[in-house]
Amino acid sequence: MDTFGTNLRVTLFGESHGPYIGATLDGLAPGLHIDEDYIRRKLSLRRPVGKISTGRVEEDRFSIISGIYQGKTTGTPLTILIPNENVKSADYERIFRPGHADYTGYCKYHGFEDYRGGGHFSGRITAALVAAGAIAEFALEQKGIRIGTHILDLCGIKDRHFTEDPAELTKDIQYINEQEFAVFSPDVQNEMIARIEEAAKEGDSVGGILESAVTGLPAGVGEPWFDSVESKLSQILFAIPAVKGVQFGLGFDGVNVSGKDYNDAFAKHDGTVITKTNHNGGINGGITNGMPILFSCAVKPTPSIFTEQESVDPFTGENTTIRIKGRHDPAIIHRARIVVDCAASLALYDLLSYRFGTDYFMNES
Amino acid sequence: MDTFGTNLRVTLFGESHGPYIGATLDGLAPGLHIDEDYIRRKLSLRRPVGKISTGRVEEDRFSIISGIYQGKTTGTPLTILIPNENVKSADYERIFRPGHADYTGYCKYHGFEDYRGGGHFSGRITAALVAAGAIAEFALEQKGIRIGTHILDLCGIKDRHFTEDPAELTKDIQYINEQEFAVFSPDVQNEMIARIEEAAKEGDSVGGILESAVTGLPAGVGEPWFDSVESKLSQILFAIPAVKGVQFGLGFDGVNVSGKDYNDAFAKHDGTVITKTNHNGGINGGITNGMPILFSCAVKPTPSIFTEQESVDPFTGENTTIRIKGRHDPAIIHRARIVVDCAASLALYDLLSYRFGTDYFMNES
Amino acid sequence: MDTFGTNLRVTLFGESHGPYIGATLDGLAPGLHIDEDYIRRKLSLRRPVGKISTGRVEEDRFSIISGIYQGKTTGTPLTILIPNENVKSADYERIFRPGHADYTGYCKYHGFEDYRGGGHFSGRITAALVAAGAIAEFALEQKGIRIGTHILDLCGIKDRHFTEDPAELTKDIQYINEQEFAVFSPDVQNEMIARIEEAAKEGDSVGGILESAVTGLPAGVGEPWFDSVESKLSQILFAIPAVKGVQFGLGFDGVNVSGKDYNDAFAKHDGTVITKTNHNGGINGGITNGMPILFSCAVKPTPSIFTEQESVDPFTGENTTIRIKGRHDPAIIHRARIVVDCAASLALYDLLSYRFGTDYFMNES
Amino acid sequence: MDTFGTNLRVTLFGESHGPYIGATLDGLAPGLHIDEDYIRRKLSLRRPVGKISTGRVEEDRFSIISGIYQGKTTGTPLTILIPNENVKSADYERIFRPGHADYTGYCKYHGFEDYRGGGHFSGRITAALVAAGAIAEFALEQKGIRIGTHILDLCGIKDRHFTEDPAELTKDIQYINEQEFAVFSPDVQNEMIARIEEAAKEGDSVGGILESAVTGLPAGVGEPWFDSVESKLSQILFAIPAVKGVQFGLGFDGVNVSGKDYNDAFAKHDGTVITKTNHNGGINGGITNGMPILFSCAVKPTPSIFTEQESVDPFTGENTTIRIKGRHDPAIIHRARIVVDCAASLALYDLLSYRFGTDYFMNES
Repeated sequence: MDTFGTNLRVTLFGESHGPYIGATLDGLAPGLHIDEDYIRRKLSLRRPVGKISTGRVEEDRFSIISGIYQGKTTGTPLTILIPNENVKSADYERIFRPGHADYTGYCKYHGFEDYRGGGHFSGRITAALVAAGAIAEFALEQKGIRIGTHILDLCGIKDRHFTEDPAELTKDIQYINEQEFAVFSPDVQNEMIARIEEAAKEGDSVGGILESAVTGLPAGVGEPWFDSVESKLSQILFAIPAVKGVQFGLGFDGVNVSGKDYNDAFAKHDGTVITKTNHNGGINGGITNGMPILFSCAVKPTPSIFTEQESVDPFTGENTTIRIKGRHDPAIIHRARIVVDCAASLALYDLLSYRFGTDYFMNES
Repeated sequence: MDTFGTNLRVTLFGESHGPYIGATLDGLAPGLHIDEDYIRRKLSLRRPVGKISTGRVEEDRFSIISGIYQGKTTGTPLTILIPNENVKSADYERIFRPGHADYTGYCKYHGFEDYRGGGHFSGRITAALVAAGAIAEFALEQKGIRIGTHILDLCGIKDRHFTEDPAELTKDIQYINEQEFAVFSPDVQNEMIARIEEAAKEGDSVGGILESAVTGLPAGVGEPWFDSVESKLSQILFAIPAVKGVQFGLGFDGVNVSGKDYNDAFAKHDGTVITKTNHNGGINGGITNGMPILFSCAVKPTPSIFTEQESVDPFTGENTTIRIKGRHDPAIIHRARIVVDCAASLALYDLLSYRFGTDYFMNES
Repeated sequence: MDTFGTNLRVTLFGESHGPYIGATLDGLAPGLHIDEDYIRRKLSLRRPVGKISTGRVEEDRFSIISGIYQGKTTGTPLTILIPNENVKSADYERIFRPGHADYTGYCKYHGFEDYRGGGHFSGRITAALVAAGAIAEFALEQKGIRIGTHILDLCGIKDRHFTEDPAELTKDIQYINEQEFAVFSPDVQNEMIARIEEAAKEGDSVGGILESAVTGLPAGVGEPWFDSVESKLSQILFAIPAVKGVQFGLGFDGVNVSGKDYNDAFAKHDGTVITKTNHNGGINGGITNGMPILFSCAVKPTPSIFTEQESVDPFTGENTTIRIKGRHDPAIIHRARIVVDCAASLALYDLLSYRFGTDYFMNES
Repeated sequence: MDTFGTNLRVTLFGESHGPYIGATLDGLAPGLHIDEDYIRRKLSLRRPVGKISTGRVEEDRFSIISGIYQGKTTGTPLTILIPNENVKSADYERIFRPGHADYTGYCKYHGFEDYRGGGHFSGRITAALVAAGAIAEFALEQKGIRIGTHILDLCGIKDRHFTEDPAELTKDIQYINEQEFAVFSPDVQNEMIARIEEAAKEGDSVGGILESAVTGLPAGVGEPWFDSVESKLSQILFAIPAVKGVQFGLGFDGVNVSGKDYNDAFAKHDGTVITKTNHNGGINGGITNGMPILFSCAVKPTPSIFTEQESVDPFTGENTTIRIKGRHDPAIIHRARIVVDCAASLALYDLLSYRFGTDYFMNES
């Protein structure tokens, strides 16, 4: 089951060392402008950069082979292909790398899985998720909905939070979306990069927390129980490899706050209703209240480290030690930020389509 | 969209002040023993108790009106009804209570929603979720799968973690499932109850963190992307009112841990493969690795507090202040623990049915 | 899997001899007026009448226990219950009745099924389908969409076809919906009833063809491949027990017609586009063209006949002969017509909701 | 909504004049042998041949770009691409061809659809459906399930029915699957081909009836209501362009048969249960009874005819006459037979996976 969504359905396909990875989107509105530069920009933000990332540099030259006509969506299924280039299969043999899906994939697929480079579990597949999500994000933007993600915490090094004020927050989102390394403070950025380089030097890796914000969503979107905004977003966010926690509003930090301080008071503001604080992250009872959606994701350190690790041999079942070769990231959190934006966009697109119908995102001009 | 699941589908229905709440389960195996005492026990653990809970005591006298024959499931849809008794509608008028879904429900349903007592958004509906989930949990138990949840942290007061060792962990689960107030330490329990009573006295409320564990799941269950074990569990856990965060394994606490320390080394053990630590919470690449599933949920303080709160008038749109009347909980975390178990059981049942077919849970004798 | 639909989901539950049958509808618009008399009228048309039907007369006193507030839908799941009254369980023992689902149910559910009176396979369950569909049909009517079904052919006795002209057709639909025994010609009606009574006398049964028409659907509804209007309608129509064939427009009768005569020419008419003939039954490429939807269903003779039949003993596996006791219909086609209308309404409601969003059917006044 | 299935999900994508058409399959078992020759053979049977088909000959050189490793499925999504070659776009301008989806597509997609050559509605897309279905059909064959389709009736010229006896029927299926033009009688074949050539000469087209049979399905597959075998098969069969009727067993021909003659008596046979006749087409109550599945499809004459036709101008809205240019089939029924087999295979694969789990079709060697 690699298909997400009810009214917009997305299926990811491909393996790290196959000819292509890609995504099929079923349920896009007709007439959506496809801005290839926009998709390219999102893909470039996911791509590894410099010393803090893997040596495998993929150009991600995607092509859209269906569902598009004269630069706009037709409304019928759209398939994006991204060729896998620069593949070095010789680097891989079947081993069970700790923290990876090699062993669980083996248990599930009985050894028929393409294990090379993580196969279908590879972070590489997130390029397809980004390409698919970029189309959704672009459509959301046409409706005045903006989404952005920054590194709030990298191994203890902390950036400031998103601004609370919705208007300022939209500026924050715009600012962060222009950054290759998504933090607000340049000092924090230097410190984080230094920390990643240090991990790289030690053959180690680091993780952190990504903080995300969405502005411009109308009130009344989402469903009361299993398709709550939190349910839908978390379903797709936990699909991102390395995400091990998702929280909304105060989340786990709200544990010590009492109800009096937690509740977001309602107030009249410019003809609409706002909340004076946003501890609930813009969601009450699973449904948007018109305030910004605020959420954050815990990203575990990349499991690909270069030190010797204990494992079990896939063929003999005996204890062994392994040492991973090849190209790997000492951190992926700075790349994951764009995957979060794109994944979240797919979930929001789906909820909005369910609510307002297939033509909601159609651009008539 | 109030329906969860692919191979086991659950729909919750009902409103706080309607005649019944209930659930329809479509996709249960035939031949499942229905232990009504087991369901009753789970429902009783969800029910409010003593001074630390609402005055509305419901007996939750459920009845199963379809899909059952001679005490076993038939394999066709099973509907459970729970009558709403002890309803005092006079206590309610339409107001927008901060932290509740009154306003968002109004935006979504345009005023047609049954707002009385929170209507379909009421925590009351979790009784139906518990009844449905109890059937799934009982079926999981027949397969040797055990699930348990305790209060790890209530407003800063902390219980010990679940034991790491899987065998001991199963004992922990058994112990905790016998407790009405789910904590390991009696001292911690007293402290937590005192804290809730204090909140009650002040018209305030408190939240906390629930920690859950699942033992006995085979390796190889779950799907690589959007139906990962994390995705499925989080989708249903975030359906529980007041849950604002979900994390697996180290979750947000893993932020400061480097890859070397985070990775769970594999080792041979009794003819199978285990991991020496369980920082990933039993899940790699979205798929079970045979180790216990570990997750925790952030539960916000109950939004129903008795102090004056700022809000907006539904009829005039003007700022106003409200004071909630009626019966309410100063905390729901001690009741939510059983909702977490039952919700998680539904997600796991669905994944196992998808993997192994409709007859997997059939009890042949 | 007893759940139909994507944006409106319907689950049927219950068994012939259980306490209740019913349906849960998830995805109804908020604010739909629930006209209980309308539902009652539809249920009464499904009920057996006089000598030509089973002796089991059920009053079908339904109650709507959720998703309704002040006579209108809330937008949250609506559950309808219909109590089973007048149940004579003593009439039933486990046998494999030819033409019934006793044997296939046994193969599927391993003997755990409630076999009494056909259990969950009983035609009785269509009362729940009618009640659910009546809500959808009423909503369609508010949008100017009308649906009607008559007996075109009963065991060779033929009624006239629906009128081709759309305006006249709507009158036809209105006329037929007022008839208890749905045929246009009173003479044909007498002949058909006589034929059913004859079958009854002989312990035999008869089938026929139901012809249906839908007017008022906008052009552009339906999906190109698997959720074509034909696909969705046929999926739900084949759910009706005894339906063994479904055709649209000329259907099987179009076999001898060449393309020149089959193609429906387009023409301008009153500012819109019509087709001069309607051989395609209002659907091109799976999508409505604005002309009436025309379809017909083959209904097999009721399998419950009173003559001795050959079968296999469920307990010994040996050949045996059986003779069915109890109350049964010599024909169900005159009752099935209303099931067809209601089932089709659910499919159309689902497609329209997908296309136009959850609020499409909301009645604002 | 171009996605079919619950446990095996298939999405078709592509347009007649785009670079590729294809299909994404999500939910295939791991370890399925992919026999490319088998797929190629099925595709070749769908391809136009000689004077009785369109001049556009496509080689259908498919490639499987994901979900395959060392010649077997991995269990993760499999995407098949078929390049569109030999495309002459100059032949097409936007017109509303009677009987085609040009007008309805325009209504649904507001003019954003790729209308060239029918775009996503083109019969061309069935090549992707065949490639996808061939994988499912091959998997079914490994389980001893055989499916075959022949032309029972072409514009009044009739072939004999499939043999009733299950063993002989399997030979019939084998025979028919070896024929390029699927009829049993060589004389009938000549007559049919002559009739098609005649239609071609007149710029006209013809339709007919396809009869299909499936042997080897175990009893107990299918669901009681909305996912009955009839419901699932008809949903996917009506997705095939030009199919306007689907019937099971006696279908519409059973109208004149009374219950006594219609009912299929059960009998013990070789340790299992059979029915002495098969008027129900192997399905009771929506569930297989172990007898062959028998169904037939009404295929309308190809709407592409070369005589002048009346239509409406897409740009002015005025009445006009059109004359179709380009390459077209005077009949597609002889090509559709393989589309029916492949589509039906997908539905049966889905039902079997739901019933028996994801590994049911895994070939362990």
